Parts: sequence; C-alpha cells; structure tokens
Amino acid sequence: MASLKKIFSSRTAKNGEFVNSLKKILGFSPKDISIYETAFTHRSTNEKNNEGQPQNYERLEFLGDSILGAVIAAHLYKKVPGGNEGYLTKMRSKVVSREHLNELGRDLNLAKFLKTTIPTQQFSGNIHGNVFEALVGAIYLDRGFNYCEKFIHKRVIKPYVDIKKLEGKVISYKSLFIEWCQKNKKPFHFEVYEDTGKDELKHFAVRLKLGDSTVTKARATSKKKAEERAAKRAFYKLNLRTDSDKA
Amino acid sequence: MASLKKIFSSRTAKNGEFVNSLKKILGFSPKDISIYETAFTHRSTNEKNNEGQPQNYERLEFLGDSILGAVIAAHLYKKVPGGNEGYLTKMRSKVVSREHLNELGRDLNLAKFLKTTIPTQQFSGNIHGNVFEALVGAIYLDRGFNYCEKFIHKRVIKPYVDIKKLEGKVISYKSLFIEWCQKNKKPFHFEVYEDTGKDELKHFAVRLKLGDSTVTKARATSKKKAEERAAKRAFYKLNLRTDSDKA
Repeated sequence: MASLKKIFSSRTAKNGEFVNSLKKILGFSPKDISIYETAFTHRSTNEKNNEGQPQNYERLEFLGDSILGAVIAAHLYKKVPGGNEGYLTKMRSKVVSREHLNELGRDLNLAKFLKTTIPTQQFSGNIHGNVFEALVGAIYLDRGFNYCEKFIHKRVIKPYVDIKKLEGKVISYKSLFIEWCQKNKKPFHFEVYEDTGKDELKHFAVRLKLGDSTVTKARATSKKKAEERAAKRAFYKLNLRTDSDKA
Repeated sequence: MASLKKIFSSRTAKNGEFVNSLKKILGFSPKDISIYETAFTHRSTNEKNNEGQPQNYERLEFLGDSILGAVIAAHLYKKVPGGNEGYLTKMRSKVVSREHLNELGRDLNLAKFLKTTIPTQQFSGNIHGNVFEALVGAIYLDRGFNYCEKFIHKRVIKPYVDIKKLEGKVISYKSLFIEWCQKNKKPFHFEVYEDTGKDELKHFAVRLKLGDSTVTKARATSKKKAEERAAKRAFYKLNLRTDSDKA
C-alpha cells in the first residue's frame, strides 16, 4: 500500500512539473492536459486509446503543420503588402523549414518531456521540429485557432521571423552594426551580464554599449543570439539603414 | 453631369448586385467589400492600390489555400480518429485537389463576378478553383478564422467531403443503391421535379421512389449530382451497408 502511494505521488509530482513547464512555454493554462500528453508521446511507446487507436504525436504533427502554415501565411500577407504570391510562398517555406522548426523545438527544450522507449540521443534533429508542430496541433484542439495564433506569434514570429533576414538582405545585424561603428569611428562593446530571469532555460543577457552608454539590451538562449538581437535593436533604434534600403 | 450620374448609379446598382450575390454565397454579410472585390479581380486588369501595389486575387489565393488546408486538416483529424498521418495527408490532398476546387468554384459560378480584361472563356478551368481560394482568403481577412471555418463547412465539407468516397470505397451511391434494388427485387425510380428554390444558380430537384413511395429528395446544381445525393441519403436512411462495412 505504501509503495502504491509512493508511485502515485511521484506520478502526480511529475505531472505537476509537466503542467507547470507547459504553462511557461504556452503562456496560458492548458485545459485538457491529455491532448498535450499525446503531443509528447513517441510511437515507440506503442500507446493506444480505448478504441485501440495509436496515441502518439504523429497525427497532431500533421494538424499542427497545417495550422502553423496558415498562421505564417496570414502574417506574411499582412506584413508584406507588396509581396506577390511567389514571394509569400518562398518566405513561408523559409519560416516553416525543417531546420527552422528544429531550432524552435530545441530552444524550447521540448524533447525533455518526450515519452519514448528509445533514448532521445538516438533521435535525429527532426524530433524537435516534429514535437513543436504536434504542440501547435494540441493547442489548436485544446484552445482553438486564436490561441494558436498568439502562441505562434510569441514563439515563432516575434523571436525568429525577420523579413529582411529571410530575404537574405541582412545576414547579421551584428556585422552590420560593427561595420557602421568602424566606418563612423565609434567604440562599441558587447557586455554579457548576469541574467536574473527565472526561465526554464538558461538565458544570456547582453548590453550593447557605444562608448560608456548602453544603447540596447537583449536576452536569448545563447550569447550569439543575444548579441544579434541587441545589435538588431540598436540598428533600428539608431535608425541605421542598409544600402538596399537607401536604393 | 448627367452622364456622370448615370455611370455612378449603374456602378452602385452593379455593386449592390455583387453584395447580394456574395451574401448568398457566404451565408453572412461581408464587412469590408473591397477585400472581396480584390478576390474577384484578375491580374489582367493591372489594378494597383495607392502605393502602386498590384491588386488582384493572387495574394488572397495564397492565403486562402493555407486556411483551407488548415480547416480540412482539422476536420479530417476529428472525423477520422483512426487515420494515421499518411492517411490524413492523402485525404486532404484529395479534398483540396485542383480538380475538386475547380468543381467547387464552378458550382458557385464565381467566375461570373470576375473583373478581367480577358474573356472568361479563354481561361483554363483553374480560374474557378483560384477564385474560390481567394474568396476563402478574403473571408479570413474580413471576418477571421471562425467564419472561414463555417463557410468551408457549408460549401466544401458538407456537400462534398464524403470520407468513404474519398477513400475510394464508394464510387457512387447511385450504383450501390441500384445494385441493392436489383438484388432485392425492389422497383425504383429517380424523378426530376420542378425546383422552386430562388438560388443564384439553376438547381435540379430529384425524388427517389421505391415503388410508389418517396424515400428521399435532394437538390443540386446538376441532375446527376441530385440523383447521387438522393441515393446517398436513401443509402443511409434505409441502413444499407457496403461489403467493406460488414467486414
């Protein structure tokens, strides 16, 4: 009886941890946890529902892929009023590329919650993108399209979708910024400082200084990304322009 | 002055006709008519907005295609809980096939409202599907995802999406029904009768009789479709089953 109680409470604790982490990732409270559990279940577990139907993330991945495509399409449509059909199609492909989705899933550390009988190290990098898509599908089923849209804005569009970068016009704001400093003889410095944020993931915080004054600050899951983000903010704050903008 | 007034009132009358027809097709009132006007504008008109950006249906077609894909994906996900990712992908391709979308657009007679400098007869059949997708995109921009979903349910899923047919298990309910009648020695008769509906499009009405009594009725935009629909209804009403169901 004691051991049963122990198993039960350890399961509850684990579930509580899952729900808490999920809340942080989603930015809202999930209603039906079972849908999210499926989104994090790999086929290797061979789980089935009462009707004998497989319960793993693959169907949700199909659904999430569709919803993600629609949200990104709508965003690009509104954001680039001068872009024709071919341009929009190309830009969307870049945003929802396998490589990009894997990066997203990896940054959110989704694989941590994966229920699988295969050690996660043995998976290809695609596991991160697949689970990310499944998560989008789960949000759609649990809370509907509008929540999905908000989640995608927060987790995909805001941190990653930079039209200029996607167009290949700007490869790195950091290098653009450095170029500008050298041309204008301004001393600059990227300064990493202690990040007090209480995120699931380790974050890096960076101050970008021109001489002694801080121009911008940024935080991200890697030092490189935080610097790039700080440089991008400075780029827009100081109203610097690329040559292609001037043309 | 008089001629200007004449042009103006004839335009208003034409616009009134467009809005009324649109309301019937949509099943709700459009808010921003200008979006729908773009959905029915062909690139041959060379129309541009104040910023010099082309105003034709092509961008809306891109958007509508995405939204349609997401709505159909969600429908199939919910409707076929036992279908795996590959099955769902295949079924969705069938529903949103060019051929199928052209049929949808043609049935709604969308090309009638097309603003173009090329005679509509010179277009390929794809014009119908393209404008249908653009219309879905316009609905999304004008009223949001939920209205889109309702429209797609009414105009695509309810009249056209029959899982058994898509799976190729049932090619024609009419032939299944006839087969059953012959096997069971039942005299049957498809009877076309006068359709009093005040639709934009000509409709055909069909009664399906077994002996002297009417089993089902149906209406559609062709006699063939009305018969098929009446047979399908009879098939379910009389609780007939295909061999694959019995297995």
